[in-house]
Amino acid sequence: MTRRTTIYDIAKELDITAASVSRALNNNPKISEATRKLVMETAAKMNYKQNKLALALRSGKSFNVGVIVPRIDSNFFASVIRGIEEELYAHQYHVIICQTHEDDKREYENISTLLNAQVDGILMSVSNISSENTSSENDKIIKRALDKNVPVIFFDRKKNIPGVSSVTINDFDVSYLATKHLIQQGCSRIAHFKGNQNIEIFKHRFNGYKQALTDNGIEFNESYVIQTKSTVAEGADAIKTLMKLPQPPDSLFSSGDFAALGAIQQLKSMGMRIPEDFCVIGFGNEPFTDFLELPMSTIDQVPLEMGKMTAKVFLDQINNTGIKNANHVVLTSELNIRKSSSRNIKSK
Amino acid sequence: MTRRTTIYDIAKELDITAASVSRALNNNPKISEATRKLVMETAAKMNYKQNKLALALRSGKSFNVGVIVPRIDSNFFASVIRGIEEELYAHQYHVIICQTHEDDKREYENISTLLNAQVDGILMSVSNISSENTSSENDKIIKRALDKNVPVIFFDRKKNIPGVSSVTINDFDVSYLATKHLIQQGCSRIAHFKGNQNIEIFKHRFNGYKQALTDNGIEFNESYVIQTKSTVAEGADAIKTLMKLPQPPDSLFSSGDFAALGAIQQLKSMGMRIPEDFCVIGFGNEPFTDFLELPMSTIDQVPLEMGKMTAKVFLDQINNTGIKNANHVVLTSELNIRKSSSRNIKSK
Repeated sequence: MTRRTTIYDIAKELDITAASVSRALNNNPKISEATRKLVMETAAKMNYKQNKLALALRSGKSFNVGVIVPRIDSNFFASVIRGIEEELYAHQYHVIICQTHEDDKREYENISTLLNAQVDGILMSVSNISSENTSSENDKIIKRALDKNVPVIFFDRKKNIPGVSSVTINDFDVSYLATKHLIQQGCSRIAHFKGNQNIEIFKHRFNGYKQALTDNGIEFNESYVIQTKSTVAEGADAIKTLMKLPQPPDSLFSSGDFAALGAIQQLKSMGMRIPEDFCVIGFGNEPFTDFLELPMSTIDQVPLEMGKMTAKVFLDQINNTGIKNANHVVLTSELNIRKSSSRNIKSK
Repeated sequence: MTRRTTIYDIAKELDITAASVSRALNNNPKISEATRKLVMETAAKMNYKQNKLALALRSGKSFNVGVIVPRIDSNFFASVIRGIEEELYAHQYHVIICQTHEDDKREYENISTLLNAQVDGILMSVSNISSENTSSENDKIIKRALDKNVPVIFFDRKKNIPGVSSVTINDFDVSYLATKHLIQQGCSRIAHFKGNQNIEIFKHRFNGYKQALTDNGIEFNESYVIQTKSTVAEGADAIKTLMKLPQPPDSLFSSGDFAALGAIQQLKSMGMRIPEDFCVIGFGNEPFTDFLELPMSTIDQVPLEMGKMTAKVFLDQINNTGIKNANHVVLTSELNIRKSSSRNIKSK
């Protein structure tokens, strides 16, 4: 019914030029942040709708950004995506999401699909790489994206590819802290569920665990370490194996929450009391860890912050520093001590 | 290193024409299902990679399908998407996902983003529509998609738009059953957390609840019904309000699992015993409902099946029946009785 608001209406309202309005709406770095904010707010107030297609044609940009994750049904990845969306939405970008289900071939096809859909950038967490061979084919398509001036940024699960930025957490340090906390609770036979060691973050978690043992005079015992996917079923199986050892462990630091939950359920069914007989710490701070009758100690990977930072690195690369100037950000995560590892909850 | 496999290699292997191989790979309905399967299997065995871009140019298709959901971090939506992917992947399609965060404006922009990305279809669950006005703008862009020969299929949360197919569950019937089950447990003051009544499925759940009361001689009591979003916080608040009534309810049928969990946590903190003093049934069968110390009764919305069926309706429309021949499928859901509503667990 009413006439569509144009950039001229916004310019008139703010008493600036239409060109300035246009620049502000298009995130041109020549416009101050204060002016950009004012224009954005006024545009929203006047119900201004940008003609995306015209914008895309003019700028050579689609204003779409692709995000690739192993799976969307983990609170961690969903929260990272929310962080990415919050940051990018304020800059007029839209986010489209693909999942790999930990399959390298799908990862390759997702990247190819997003490039065909003309995204302006790809923000991704790599799949559980099983074979070096396929991995190198995936590396090639990532390099092809960079050559097309489409920046690629890894978050959480990264690989080392020249020109690709990354946003991760301090996996080594926080794993060291978690293991040290178990030692302080009186545990000395500490088991570890390790993730796929081809992925850096899982290697760092494993190394942080080992270093904490060494620094506290506990000998590293290979038989206490099992590689698992973080699922309830694999966690239950793994702890069953460990509890059959002549000298079973007295605690567990798991590199994933779901496997830790499987371990807790299995230990309980075997009559173990947690934390009295056995302490458990997970990794990820999935919401269920706090819903449980016995809230689980775990590590918060600050996913919202990680998402926002990943988006910021992307924006910085396309607007200022250039596509291939990689930036590596390491965020600080938080160890949440809860009941599953607190023998003296009052002194927490 | 090795030469790329072509359709001619596959044709030679199977002793059929290259044209037949091409048709089979492109899901041409002229090719029998048996041949198509054989070609697909042989292509996979020979590590054949279709040139997607050439295919897209030849067929005018992108082989990308867009999926729009309110949020990805619900097990329900994530599982529907998995079902969609499983079905479509076998037919060479890729899936890209957008979320609306229950925001109509974002829903509009998601549809527009997907159309710009040249998807061949849009499978969506509508957002929590707040205003009729915005909704009609969203209806218009959906009609525009249909006019561009891009089929739109609703799953779970649908609206009635001519030419748009839908896949839903029997919300009315299963809500009726859930309410009746509470009555059979001896409950008579049954509360209901209802969802946004602009969305059909939530209206059906509410109506099923009301009908079960009436059919069992229980008078409907408006004050036992509260509209909530399905979050732990809103569920806790809502039950707090209800428990302050002169005659508080003795049970709850919630249209969402998260709100039901909030209610359970709040009731426990008030010293109520579940199910002895108060019975609870949720809706959605989120995984946590079974992880709880007190497993929650809930309704399984058969999300995988829903996803596969939605994909099948899409494939059927583009390959056979035509874009605008709407098809409405209603799947049968399952009532999972668990401890939170089982006063005599043995007779379950």
